[in-house]
Amino acid sequence: MADKLNAGAELMELLRAGELLASCGNVLSWDEQTVMPPGGAAHRSEQLALLAGLAHDRRVDPRIGELLSLLQNDAGIEPLSDLGVTVRESRRLYDRHVRLPRRLVSELSRVTSLAQQAWVEARRENRFEGFRPWLEQVVRLKREEAEALVRPGEELYDALLEDYEPRMTSREVAEIFAPLRRELTLLVSAIDSSGHKLPVDLVHRSYPVASQRVFVKHAAAAIGFDFQRGYLAESAHPFCSGIGPGDCRLTTRYDERALNTALFGVLHEAGHGIYEQGLREECFGLPPGQAVSLGVHESQSRLWENLVGRGRPFWRHFFPLLKQTFPGTLDGVAEDDFHAALNHVAPTFIRVEADEVTYNLHIMLRFELERALLGGNLAVSDVPEAWRQLFQNYFGRTPATDRDGCLQDIHWSAGLFGYFPTYTLGNLYAAELMAAARGQISDLDSQFARGEFGELRAWLRESIHRQGRRYAPRELIERAIERPVTAEPLLAHLWGKFGELYGISRPAVA
Amino acid sequence: MADKLNAGAELMELLRAGELLASCGNVLSWDEQTVMPPGGAAHRSEQLALLAGLAHDRRVDPRIGELLSLLQNDAGIEPLSDLGVTVRESRRLYDRHVRLPRRLVSELSRVTSLAQQAWVEARRENRFEGFRPWLEQVVRLKREEAEALVRPGEELYDALLEDYEPRMTSREVAEIFAPLRRELTLLVSAIDSSGHKLPVDLVHRSYPVASQRVFVKHAAAAIGFDFQRGYLAESAHPFCSGIGPGDCRLTTRYDERALNTALFGVLHEAGHGIYEQGLREECFGLPPGQAVSLGVHESQSRLWENLVGRGRPFWRHFFPLLKQTFPGTLDGVAEDDFHAALNHVAPTFIRVEADEVTYNLHIMLRFELERALLGGNLAVSDVPEAWRQLFQNYFGRTPATDRDGCLQDIHWSAGLFGYFPTYTLGNLYAAELMAAARGQISDLDSQFARGEFGELRAWLRESIHRQGRRYAPRELIERAIERPVTAEPLLAHLWGKFGELYGISRPAVA
Repeated sequence: MADKLNAGAELMELLRAGELLASCGNVLSWDEQTVMPPGGAAHRSEQLALLAGLAHDRRVDPRIGELLSLLQNDAGIEPLSDLGVTVRESRRLYDRHVRLPRRLVSELSRVTSLAQQAWVEARRENRFEGFRPWLEQVVRLKREEAEALVRPGEELYDALLEDYEPRMTSREVAEIFAPLRRELTLLVSAIDSSGHKLPVDLVHRSYPVASQRVFVKHAAAAIGFDFQRGYLAESAHPFCSGIGPGDCRLTTRYDERALNTALFGVLHEAGHGIYEQGLREECFGLPPGQAVSLGVHESQSRLWENLVGRGRPFWRHFFPLLKQTFPGTLDGVAEDDFHAALNHVAPTFIRVEADEVTYNLHIMLRFELERALLGGNLAVSDVPEAWRQLFQNYFGRTPATDRDGCLQDIHWSAGLFGYFPTYTLGNLYAAELMAAARGQISDLDSQFARGEFGELRAWLRESIHRQGRRYAPRELIERAIERPVTAEPLLAHLWGKFGELYGISRPAVA
Repeated sequence: MADKLNAGAELMELLRAGELLASCGNVLSWDEQTVMPPGGAAHRSEQLALLAGLAHDRRVDPRIGELLSLLQNDAGIEPLSDLGVTVRESRRLYDRHVRLPRRLVSELSRVTSLAQQAWVEARRENRFEGFRPWLEQVVRLKREEAEALVRPGEELYDALLEDYEPRMTSREVAEIFAPLRRELTLLVSAIDSSGHKLPVDLVHRSYPVASQRVFVKHAAAAIGFDFQRGYLAESAHPFCSGIGPGDCRLTTRYDERALNTALFGVLHEAGHGIYEQGLREECFGLPPGQAVSLGVHESQSRLWENLVGRGRPFWRHFFPLLKQTFPGTLDGVAEDDFHAALNHVAPTFIRVEADEVTYNLHIMLRFELERALLGGNLAVSDVPEAWRQLFQNYFGRTPATDRDGCLQDIHWSAGLFGYFPTYTLGNLYAAELMAAARGQISDLDSQFARGEFGELRAWLRESIHRQGRRYAPRELIERAIERPVTAEPLLAHLWGKFGELYGISRPAVA
């Protein structure tokens, strides 16, 4: 018993120390994307590669393997206790980490840091050719990584997906996506042929950036992001980074003539931040105190961004405040019209500017392409053309430039293959969670209309945040919603909301 | 020969790797002081302690000792070559590092990180008692550090001074300070009894912060700080941090009604930054590519801040630009009057707000106190009273609060004992360098009046920046000025400048 206690304590200490080191890298990455001058890029890539290598060394410490072997055969450990969860999840990750050569870990860190810089430039100059050699290197290294990790019967892609959505396969993703794609396409064309136009120009008036800063910070604090334990900065590519207990960072970007950009960007990132801030601080670095998957993470950001922030009740509270913040800009504008303007649906070339309806189609396109890249069925040099063809298939048009096409996202330059599908999984999970919360809390909409979000947040905190990695991601959601996950709540939400806005209705048999 | 080459290359690789790791800590410290939310303090102190411990491990790697022993007995290595300098200086530092227990290094990092947070709060609340236990811990740990490092015949204080001004003793500092103090006191009373008042209100008009930001950034770029390889942020306590090649960070703070604060603050930090940016990038982490001492570092900041930035020719160029930047604020104000206002002399309680004349007296006071603290002749609990008494001696008045007294500086909370004297050494060195540059470049003032600073910067680059640690700090200065260092150029500068502004003259026998 004493032995087991000691072994458990020692294991946790080793795991914590590894994550403490990794969290130093998070600070450096945050800094790189928010303030680092261009001249610092080369040195930064060396720093990050060093930290990645050191963190890897700790994660594959043979002593962790010994302690795990000792503990996992101990029938006295309750599987769902903190120690039980720690042993189970650490085993899974340890077994992955030890299969990665240290050289590959450092190399990936170094190359992706430089590739991101190359991507920034290639995107600015709209020149895929400048990025191609870097993407080739990244794909080669990620394939090497996947080959080291892949299990019998899996696709290479599955081995990478596991990093972001543990225990989900690309076949399952494809199965979830196929019917969703069919019905989203129906919805898009129903909206298109409705002839209905929402007054979208309302959100493209002049919204001075200084006032936007004040408003979005207020909104993020209102839904529950704690600025005593968090910070909001600007970066070219918005993200959320949990540095550690008491320190969670958000970024956004501002566009004076596009209110949605920072507004929904910040609600989105604040949703991620509320998850991070809701983790059990005393379990920092241990599975019971870690976010369970990116899909679940994304469910939190999408829930606050789309299901709360783009909803009618939210604006009952915030519209008067918005009018005050931008004096004169929205005089005489009705709340309903403003809400409609926020929710205008129109296909865009750029994913991060997409509306709630078309967004998931952007994800499906990327999922197809990266699965093909990893599977060896698509060469990097053919990516621009493949993107154009697929975009035509999905959206019925073709981007004129690679900047509006395959150069738009940071992910591939950063080596994040397998990440994209979690965005759509997040949308599905978010709709499921919101439907369940509505079932359990009767007057959510009136709470939102009064600017009160605490009860929903508390429900999410208990159902999701404080659970850490106790359950597999899908199981965690299904426990919270008390039924199996399907696409139905998302589709019901979209048809309901956009049906009303565009005066259309869902076909009886979709 | 091949062995020696290999040993040299291996040594440099090991040193570089240690400094690369240490430079990660610099990013975390920068972040802590510029953006980190309050809630992140505890985690940050753990991160910094971890990195400090790891960097220490690398610095005391026994392999470095072996390589040094191999190389330092090799008569074939030119002592002033890059390798020769690397071996000499690494030996000095290695011998210091191996005497420090790892526990002490981590503990100092952890405690000073928390002590800084406690100091911020104690200063805000003007409550020394809240800081006292932390300062006691820091003093205890620094004494322990000094005891581990001190050499026979030295004071404990010398062992700490060595970190900032290698090869200088506290006795030498005291010898330099004594006559300087006598003559500065004379100058202060001459100014005081001149009855002359400079139009200081001109710099306390309303200077909107947004325009100050533009102006100071322009000024920093004009003297040669490269913003492609650098960044300027805001922090409560201005500083400069060289992260690594191509990445140097400055901070400042703004006060709408005190133009001098950010203006000279930024010229000062930019002076540090120009030194950092002038180091040999290819020698990152190695003595030939490192700043030689804080005194020499401070000579660069003081030179640009005081001897260039507070000078008459500088404002010939910048005054019209300043008027444009703040339309209406300085209408009808003569250049001479504005320059006089910038240089108003008046004793203040706060060091960082001090003018060029009284500044050094603030330093001497701190030097006395910290030397007594380290020597065991002053208890931490007696610091507030000792500060008041000494301030009375130096300035003829007494601060009413500890916030205006012993709580004003961050240094002691950060464990930086031995740091203060380098500020005054920097002032001495700066005056020496400027006098020498004037001797070698005939029309410096007309260059400044045209907004041209390149020739002075190039002279400093060759004489100081590119020399790294080739020579001891004082020797480096004496090689540049081609004579022994004395206080005379500083005194001649101060009497000359303030004699003219206040209509006084230097007594024949000072």
